[in-house]
Amino acid sequence: MPAPFRHAAIVGKFQAQGIGPLLEEITRFLLEQGVEVVFERETAHATGITEFGALDAGELGQRCEFAIVVGGDGTMLGIARELARHNLPLVGINQGRLGFITDVPVGQYKEALASMIAGDYEEEHRSMLEGQVFRNGLPIHEALSLNDVVVDRGQTASMVELRVDVDDDFVANLRCDGLIIATPTGSTAYALSAGGPILHPGIAGLVFAPIASHTLSNRPIVLPDDATIRITLVNGRDASAHFDMHSLASLQHGDCVQVRRSAYKVRFLHPRGWSYYATLRRKLRWYEGVV
Amino acid sequence: MPAPFRHAAIVGKFQAQGIGPLLEEITRFLLEQGVEVVFERETAHATGITEFGALDAGELGQRCEFAIVVGGDGTMLGIARELARHNLPLVGINQGRLGFITDVPVGQYKEALASMIAGDYEEEHRSMLEGQVFRNGLPIHEALSLNDVVVDRGQTASMVELRVDVDDDFVANLRCDGLIIATPTGSTAYALSAGGPILHPGIAGLVFAPIASHTLSNRPIVLPDDATIRITLVNGRDASAHFDMHSLASLQHGDCVQVRRSAYKVRFLHPRGWSYYATLRRKLRWYEGVV
Amino acid sequence: MPAPFRHAAIVGKFQAQGIGPLLEEITRFLLEQGVEVVFERETAHATGITEFGALDAGELGQRCEFAIVVGGDGTMLGIARELARHNLPLVGINQGRLGFITDVPVGQYKEALASMIAGDYEEEHRSMLEGQVFRNGLPIHEALSLNDVVVDRGQTASMVELRVDVDDDFVANLRCDGLIIATPTGSTAYALSAGGPILHPGIAGLVFAPIASHTLSNRPIVLPDDATIRITLVNGRDASAHFDMHSLASLQHGDCVQVRRSAYKVRFLHPRGWSYYATLRRKLRWYEGVV
Amino acid sequence: MPAPFRHAAIVGKFQAQGIGPLLEEITRFLLEQGVEVVFERETAHATGITEFGALDAGELGQRCEFAIVVGGDGTMLGIARELARHNLPLVGINQGRLGFITDVPVGQYKEALASMIAGDYEEEHRSMLEGQVFRNGLPIHEALSLNDVVVDRGQTASMVELRVDVDDDFVANLRCDGLIIATPTGSTAYALSAGGPILHPGIAGLVFAPIASHTLSNRPIVLPDDATIRITLVNGRDASAHFDMHSLASLQHGDCVQVRRSAYKVRFLHPRGWSYYATLRRKLRWYEGVV
Repeated sequence: MPAPFRHAAIVGKFQAQGIGPLLEEITRFLLEQGVEVVFERETAHATGITEFGALDAGELGQRCEFAIVVGGDGTMLGIARELARHNLPLVGINQGRLGFITDVPVGQYKEALASMIAGDYEEEHRSMLEGQVFRNGLPIHEALSLNDVVVDRGQTASMVELRVDVDDDFVANLRCDGLIIATPTGSTAYALSAGGPILHPGIAGLVFAPIASHTLSNRPIVLPDDATIRITLVNGRDASAHFDMHSLASLQHGDCVQVRRSAYKVRFLHPRGWSYYATLRRKLRWYEGVV
Repeated sequence: MPAPFRHAAIVGKFQAQGIGPLLEEITRFLLEQGVEVVFERETAHATGITEFGALDAGELGQRCEFAIVVGGDGTMLGIARELARHNLPLVGINQGRLGFITDVPVGQYKEALASMIAGDYEEEHRSMLEGQVFRNGLPIHEALSLNDVVVDRGQTASMVELRVDVDDDFVANLRCDGLIIATPTGSTAYALSAGGPILHPGIAGLVFAPIASHTLSNRPIVLPDDATIRITLVNGRDASAHFDMHSLASLQHGDCVQVRRSAYKVRFLHPRGWSYYATLRRKLRWYEGVV
Repeated sequence: MPAPFRHAAIVGKFQAQGIGPLLEEITRFLLEQGVEVVFERETAHATGITEFGALDAGELGQRCEFAIVVGGDGTMLGIARELARHNLPLVGINQGRLGFITDVPVGQYKEALASMIAGDYEEEHRSMLEGQVFRNGLPIHEALSLNDVVVDRGQTASMVELRVDVDDDFVANLRCDGLIIATPTGSTAYALSAGGPILHPGIAGLVFAPIASHTLSNRPIVLPDDATIRITLVNGRDASAHFDMHSLASLQHGDCVQVRRSAYKVRFLHPRGWSYYATLRRKLRWYEGVV
Repeated sequence: MPAPFRHAAIVGKFQAQGIGPLLEEITRFLLEQGVEVVFERETAHATGITEFGALDAGELGQRCEFAIVVGGDGTMLGIARELARHNLPLVGINQGRLGFITDVPVGQYKEALASMIAGDYEEEHRSMLEGQVFRNGLPIHEALSLNDVVVDRGQTASMVELRVDVDDDFVANLRCDGLIIATPTGSTAYALSAGGPILHPGIAGLVFAPIASHTLSNRPIVLPDDATIRITLVNGRDASAHFDMHSLASLQHGDCVQVRRSAYKVRFLHPRGWSYYATLRRKLRWYEGVV
C-alpha cells in the first residue's frame, strides 16, 4: 500500500461561496485524522476561509500530497489542468449528481478520505492534450485540455472546411460544423453528443469526431495518442478553437490548430472498489430504456 | 397538358458574372422558340446583359410565367425565397454537379426547355417556413426559409438550453449545440448532417433535429407541418438564429423563435420522367458503398 | 361530447392469469357505473372468469362500444390488430411502467374510466400496415401490423440485398441486416433503435429505416403513407419477414414483401389532458442526460 | 532493409477457378525474379494448376517467406486466419475495387512485388480475436477472427438480452439485436454499419458495438485489447455467434461467448508509400458528399 497522505489541498473554487461550511467540515475531519490542510488561493478567497492558509497551484504542488476537490466535473476539469504540471493526485467530492470524474458522494466523504489517507485507494491516470494555434507558422496560442480540443464554425451559419493531417499523413478535408479531438476523459463529454465512441481510459487513443459532417461517411476515428494532429482552416472565416471550452475566436484562413498528448497526466484517486463501467451505467442510465 | 409558357425570367444571380455567355445562349434559344425573355435585375447588373430588360422579383412575378434559374442549389434557394410570393414556377439548370433542386444538366437544357415550353413537364410543390423572432413578446425579425430555421449556440463554447413548444404543448428542454427545423427540401441539407431523416416532399411534416444533443435520447422528430413551433432560449447567451443561413446573432435569454409553414409554396418544374428517388441515389451515392 | 359508452369489452390476454382480481375489480367498477361488461374469450379462459360472458374479437366488435385493455404495449398491440376490423376504441390500463400506447396507470383507472364513460376523453387514430408476401407473383402470406414490417437476414451471418420500389419508382438496392417499414406508432419501437426518427401520429407517413446498412448514406426516409412499398430479396437466402414480430422465415430469392397502409385504423382513447409529447418525455427520459 | 524473399506462396482460393491465368502470370513473373513458388492446396485444386506443387497452410508456413493473395478482402480474411499461426506475411493483389486489406491493384503487381522481393515494403501487424463459446462452463466451440465476433438474435424476431463482463467487471445488460466485438481491422466492416468508430490499426483496442440497442445511450465503447470480454445470453433463445461470419447457431440461455486478443497477429505487406488514411478516403469516398 502507498504511504499515507499527510498534506491535503482543499479546492472548491467555482462554486466556492456556498460551500464554505462543507469545506470547513471536511477540513476539520482531515485535521482530526492528523492531516495538514491548506486551501487553494481562490477557494480561500471566495469562501473567506483564510485560517488554513491560501496557496496557488504551484505552491500546492510542492507542499501537498493530494488535493480534495469539492464540486462537479467542471470544477475538477479546471483544477486538474492547473495542477497538471505538479503531479498531485486528485479526489472529487460531489454534492449533487455524481460526475464522470467526481465520484465520492458528499455523504460518504469520511469513509472515502479515511481509507485514502491510510493509503487504501485506486489510482488512475488520464491523459491530457496540448493544443497550439499557429498563424503564418508562428504559435499564437497554447492551452492544455483534459477533455477536448474543438475547432468549429463559430458564429457563422455556413460550414467550415478543415484539412486534417496526422503526423506526416493527410487524413481528410472535412466540411462540417467542426471537429472534436477528445481524450478518453473527454469521450463521454461533448464528443459523445457528436456521435463519438466512449474510450476506456486505458486506451492510448484520441477520439476524432466530426460535428455534423456534410459527407455522411466521415465517421469518428480513434487515433493513436502519440500522433500529432494538425487541423488547418482551409475554408471559412471567423472559426473558433476551444480548449476544454476556453475559446479562441476569429481563426483565419490558413490557421492551424495542432493537438498532441501532453507530457502531463492527471492522477485521480478513487475509493477501492471503484468501477469505470459502474460510472458509465450510472451516468448514461443504461438499462433504463424505452421498455 | 398545361398551356405553353410564353414569358420567361432569366436568373443567374449569385455566380452571374462568369455565366453571361451561357445566359445569352439560353436566351437566344428561348427567343427562337417564340418565348419572350426578361432578366432578373441583379442578374442583368452582374452580367452587364441589359438588352432584354431587367426587372425585380415583384415585376417578374407579374410579367413572366416561369423562371429559369442557372446555377446551383444555393442560387435556387435565394431566388425561390424572393419569388415565393409570386407563384412563379422555377426550372433549375446546373452547370456543375447536379443539385437536389437544380436538376437539368446544362448539356440538356434545350430538350428540357423545349418540352416545358410546350407544356410537357412535371410540377412539384415544396413548402416553406415562416420564421419570426420575438423579444419581450414583440416581433424583432422575420424571414422565409425554403430549407430550414436553425437556433444554435453561436460563438460560445457551451451548450444552449432551448425550450420547445408545439402549439400549446410543451415538447422538451434541449441542451445541445442547436436545433434545426427543416422542410422536406431542407431535410437533405443541414438536417441530414445532424442525423435527421430524409423527408419525401409529399410529407406534410417538418424535421425537428437537435444538433449534438447532450441527452442521447433526444432524437429527431417529424412534426405535422400545420403546427406552430416555438423555440425559447432558456439558457445561454449570444445564441444565433439562422434562416436558410441568413443569421440573426445575439439572441438573448427569453427570446423566442417561432416557426410555421408559410402560406407560399415553391413550384419546381422538372423534365418528364424526373424521379425524386433518382436524385437521392445520385446525390447520396447509394449503392456505391464500402464494398 | 360523444355519447356515453354502455358496453365494455375487457381484455387482458397475454398476462391474464395473474391479473384476474384486477380485471374483476375493474369489472365491478364498470357495473356500478351502469356499464355492461363482457370478457374477451381468451381473457376469460386464462383467468377462469366466465360469469360475464366470453366473446371473440368479431363478437366484441358488434356488442361493445369500447374495449379496456389491461397490460403493456405488447398486449395492446395484439388486441389492437385483432379488433382493427371492428372499429372499437381502446383504452390501455397499465400495471407497470407506462407504455407508449397504454397510458392509464392502474392507480388512476377509476377517474379515467368514469370520465370516458361520460364521454369526456381524447380520441386518437393510428394507422396500420397491411403486409403481403409474394412468391412467383402469388401471395403466400399476409398480415396486419400496428408497429412495423421488417425484412431481415434471418439466421445467416451475411447481409441481404433488398431492392425497394415505391409505387412505380425504384428507390434503392440496400445491402444491410434488414429494412424496417414502421408506422408512426412503430417509430418509437424497433425503428428507433435502428436509427429512425420519431414520427408524430399526425404524420401521414411511414418510416423506412435500414438496419446496419453497408452504405453509410442509406439513411432513414419518411415516405408518404399512401404509397405501396415493395421489398424484393435480390441477394441472400433464408431471409425473414416480421409483422409486428410475427415471423415468416425462409424467404427465397425473388420473394417480394409488399407494404401498404391498411384501410383500418386503431382508435385509442386517452384521458383528457393526455399529451403525446409528455409520453415521449417520460418514455425516453428526456432531460435526464449525461450532466 | 529486410532480407529478400525467396519463397512465395500463391493463394487465390475462393474465386480461384476464373483466375488461373492471372495466377500463372504472377507465378511466371516471380520465377523470373528468382523466387520459388508453391500453390496453396485448395488454390491448386480449384484452378487445376498443379505443376508448382500444392501445400496446405501448415506446410506453406514452413516453406515460404511470404504469401501472395489474389482476390478481395473476403479471400484475404480466410487465408489470414488459416496462416495466422505461421507468421507468414501477406500481400493482397486485387482484381476489382481495392479493399481495406487487399491494396495492390492487379495492374501494378509487378512493381509492387519486385520492390517487396527486394525487401522494400511497409509491414503492418493486425491483431486477431480468439473466441470461445462455453455451455455449462465447458468450451463447446472456438474460432479465430480477424474482423469480429458477433452475438445476435439469430432468426427470432425479438431482441436478445446480453450480459457483458470485462475481466472481473460487470459492464452492462444490453437488450438489442446483437453485439459486435471488432478488431481495428473489423472496425471498418460490420461494426461500422452498426455505428461503431473506425479504429486505427495502431490502437490496442477493440470496438464494442451494440446492434440496434433498445437503450439509446448504449453507445459504442473502445475497450483495451488485453481485456477478456464475456458475453452471456441472459434472455432470448436460438441466438447465434458469428466469428468472421462463420456461425454457431442455437445458443442457449446461459451460454457464454468469451473474446480475447489472440496471441497471433496477421502481418500485411504494403508497397512503400502505402497510407492507411488514403485507404479510408478511397473506401469511404470522403469528400464526395452531398454538395
